[in-house]
Amino acid sequence: MEKTTIKEVTEIELKNPILVEGLPGLGMVGRITTRYLAKQLKAKKLAKLYSPHFPYYVLVNKKGSVRLLSGEFYYWKNETGENDFLLFTGDSQAQTIEGQYEIASCILDFAERKNVKIVVTIGGFRKEVEETPKVVAASTSPELLNKALQGEAIASPAGNPIVGTAGLLLGLARFKKIDAICLLGETRGYLPDPRAAKSVLEVLQRMLRVKVDLSGLDKEIEKSKEIVERMLAIEERREKYARKMRREEEERITYIS
Amino acid sequence: MEKTTIKEVTEIELKNPILVEGLPGLGMVGRITTRYLAKQLKAKKLAKLYSPHFPYYVLVNKKGSVRLLSGEFYYWKNETGENDFLLFTGDSQAQTIEGQYEIASCILDFAERKNVKIVVTIGGFRKEVEETPKVVAASTSPELLNKALQGEAIASPAGNPIVGTAGLLLGLARFKKIDAICLLGETRGYLPDPRAAKSVLEVLQRMLRVKVDLSGLDKEIEKSKEIVERMLAIEERREKYARKMRREEEERITYIS
Amino acid sequence: MEKTTIKEVTEIELKNPILVEGLPGLGMVGRITTRYLAKQLKAKKLAKLYSPHFPYYVLVNKKGSVRLLSGEFYYWKNETGENDFLLFTGDSQAQTIEGQYEIASCILDFAERKNVKIVVTIGGFRKEVEETPKVVAASTSPELLNKALQGEAIASPAGNPIVGTAGLLLGLARFKKIDAICLLGETRGYLPDPRAAKSVLEVLQRMLRVKVDLSGLDKEIEKSKEIVERMLAIEERREKYARKMRREEEERITYIS
Amino acid sequence: MEKTTIKEVTEIELKNPILVEGLPGLGMVGRITTRYLAKQLKAKKLAKLYSPHFPYYVLVNKKGSVRLLSGEFYYWKNETGENDFLLFTGDSQAQTIEGQYEIASCILDFAERKNVKIVVTIGGFRKEVEETPKVVAASTSPELLNKALQGEAIASPAGNPIVGTAGLLLGLARFKKIDAICLLGETRGYLPDPRAAKSVLEVLQRMLRVKVDLSGLDKEIEKSKEIVERMLAIEERREKYARKMRREEEERITYIS
Repeated sequence: MEKTTIKEVTEIELKNPILVEGLPGLGMVGRITTRYLAKQLKAKKLAKLYSPHFPYYVLVNKKGSVRLLSGEFYYWKNETGENDFLLFTGDSQAQTIEGQYEIASCILDFAERKNVKIVVTIGGFRKEVEETPKVVAASTSPELLNKALQGEAIASPAGNPIVGTAGLLLGLARFKKIDAICLLGETRGYLPDPRAAKSVLEVLQRMLRVKVDLSGLDKEIEKSKEIVERMLAIEERREKYARKMRREEEERITYIS
Repeated sequence: MEKTTIKEVTEIELKNPILVEGLPGLGMVGRITTRYLAKQLKAKKLAKLYSPHFPYYVLVNKKGSVRLLSGEFYYWKNETGENDFLLFTGDSQAQTIEGQYEIASCILDFAERKNVKIVVTIGGFRKEVEETPKVVAASTSPELLNKALQGEAIASPAGNPIVGTAGLLLGLARFKKIDAICLLGETRGYLPDPRAAKSVLEVLQRMLRVKVDLSGLDKEIEKSKEIVERMLAIEERREKYARKMRREEEERITYIS
Repeated sequence: MEKTTIKEVTEIELKNPILVEGLPGLGMVGRITTRYLAKQLKAKKLAKLYSPHFPYYVLVNKKGSVRLLSGEFYYWKNETGENDFLLFTGDSQAQTIEGQYEIASCILDFAERKNVKIVVTIGGFRKEVEETPKVVAASTSPELLNKALQGEAIASPAGNPIVGTAGLLLGLARFKKIDAICLLGETRGYLPDPRAAKSVLEVLQRMLRVKVDLSGLDKEIEKSKEIVERMLAIEERREKYARKMRREEEERITYIS
Repeated sequence: MEKTTIKEVTEIELKNPILVEGLPGLGMVGRITTRYLAKQLKAKKLAKLYSPHFPYYVLVNKKGSVRLLSGEFYYWKNETGENDFLLFTGDSQAQTIEGQYEIASCILDFAERKNVKIVVTIGGFRKEVEETPKVVAASTSPELLNKALQGEAIASPAGNPIVGTAGLLLGLARFKKIDAICLLGETRGYLPDPRAAKSVLEVLQRMLRVKVDLSGLDKEIEKSKEIVERMLAIEERREKYARKMRREEEERITYIS
């Protein structure tokens, strides 16, 4: 395998499909969101993406079976609405700069072949979130951005870099005249963050007029809350200690100067 | 040399060959196992693999001669059984991600041309081994996995990553419809570990119905035991010291907070 | 996108054009100079350069819009003089060695197609500048270098490496028989340095017989001065402290030896 | 420039040429030796090698001129002996693994086209040299090795890795059926080491029956001796201090355990 390649497992005709992409990244927001959506929609597997730019190991499954790292495309036939869905998630981002560009290009070529009209990418936005995480949006299309804002997202601050596949898909989509938007759930980013994923899914529902049950995420949120609280307590003690050390050092410097 | 290439040193017809692969890695288990097997079977050299992804140095032999780093294929004509053997070992793993994928693909292309039906890869599995090391197995084929379990291997835990050539050969074998299994000998992994290699060879013998004399490994095991014991003693003292330091620091933190 | 590519946004015939290049680098001198020049000349956009060797993120604009990192070519029709201008600046340098060579080659191929006769590259030259920064020049052509020296640049010391695109463009220009010169504004290099950019622009004006209003830079210079002064004060205290520490350590060593 | 390329500056027919290669590396032994030899033989420039795997900067010459990093081939017409000489040296080794293989292959392709019969590569061999440095030899050909031993080189110990171009040229020469030998001058390797270069040149003279005046190196040796002595004095004090610290720590550990 010399190049990123996509292997289709089934042939299917899709109706004005929207591609939703979410790979591992900050707070795992992209991956949690896309996987949850695929599960709730009972989306079916369409294709797998393999790449020599993924890490060079394989993973063992439950039954002692083994598989390459990969990306996966799922599809969902939308019986009542205008747009079918294409969902993309996977095990990993590319490990090199050139690999990042190659994989994003490869996903978009496939999307174009499948006649995708809109790309939605999902990720995390680092912030010391106190309350319900907000969803930060940026887009190649003012109309699409507007839809997200109506769906209660907020516009991304200027200068914000969107790193990895979620960003490059937007940047490269222009060359194919495909509109694209990125939704970033606010997250501290230390740990998988289902709360941020829930916020993103709420915006997605309003934007794309699709309805999924989000109660499955609430259990995850409860569990992660406990872990985060414990971590914060440890961190606070560390910070207190570091502050004291810094104070002492400053006193010493002041004394010398 | 721009690409990984294989140079055949002899032409030979093989009967339903099984490929056994073991490169340097954790505890050198793969390399020790494969080399020992080749030596005991008096396997003959079939081909050499060269790659621009190997480290950029050459090695000096005993006679002041010099050679590129390489991988080597050996073959063994199995007079009494169904399957001839193809053995692959070498000096090094690839040094880049893309190189890892390229070399594994190149080995599999060659295996396919030689009509290989089964690939067995060998490596180490990191564990604080107390007694006889176990052998951990994962496979692309339930039947093959079953054979290993009957041969007294244990199934790999889920989520275990298999890193490097031993892993990628399994992941990529699927695309060629070649069944593949990985056998990982438990090892602390600090040092070349002939004990883990012996455990792997015992499982291999039962699985592949081939018989080799393992007594040659026992001397190596004796030697390595002494070295490990000395290292463990040093480590224990260090750990004791580190624990004491941590305790003191924690007391200080507790005192402040 | 597998290779660096240039997309032209307009077709235009240029008269003996001179290419002025300045990318981000030491003190941001190249970028500040080229952007300021483009703005004052009201230069128009000619083409964009995209590359898989740029960092793998996209940037959000003011309106929540998104764009790939890129380089940009601007042109200026010189009504009264002999040479039109081509200006190149951008968001980033290439992130790998091979990418650096590829992007510089790509820029030069484009310049050749546009019939460029002279290339001027801009960068920073690290120095603890006290007064007005000088401009250091090196060139592939003695005549061009002479023009710069007459324009009050000083000749580069021998052995000085010119790193990145500003350097490689000179090195590679020879193969296309295009004369090239590099102008490096002296700068401490910690922070964007408009003062160094002003010095470069003054030399450029004299060399290329073009006149732009530089007063817009003076406000930037005022602002940056304050920041630098604050930073220097902090640094001085640190240095004092570090010197004291070193002295103490040396005393200890001397005592032992 | 996408690939390593060689540009010939003159056409010349060479008589059974021997290629002598020496790039920057340990103690700069390869480069000093080859440059000194070229200078003494008044060898003329034949070709330049450029590569996108060299570092991405250019160098300023004495006259404010600029040039790409490069390798250089020189030739020497041997009026009285059987073999003309081809000499290769340059500014830098390749910066990536793949680049190392590419550049070595490119040099050998050129050597083959020029009908080269023997390749001699020069480098450093790390050792705490007390007296006159010895010259360590390894070869692809027993006869060639023998000639070096008769010329007072010593055979390389087994297992010694020869890193970089000096090594890869030997490894890859086999594929072209060109005999090759590597001569490594013993050196501490901290600093450019003309003493090691002199030893190599003495062996080379005996091996290749060529005579050059080595007195020019003696001044360099004097200068470098002083620098080394000063550095050793500093190092000794450091080592003393480090030993004391280690002793104290060990006492503490022993006390605890």
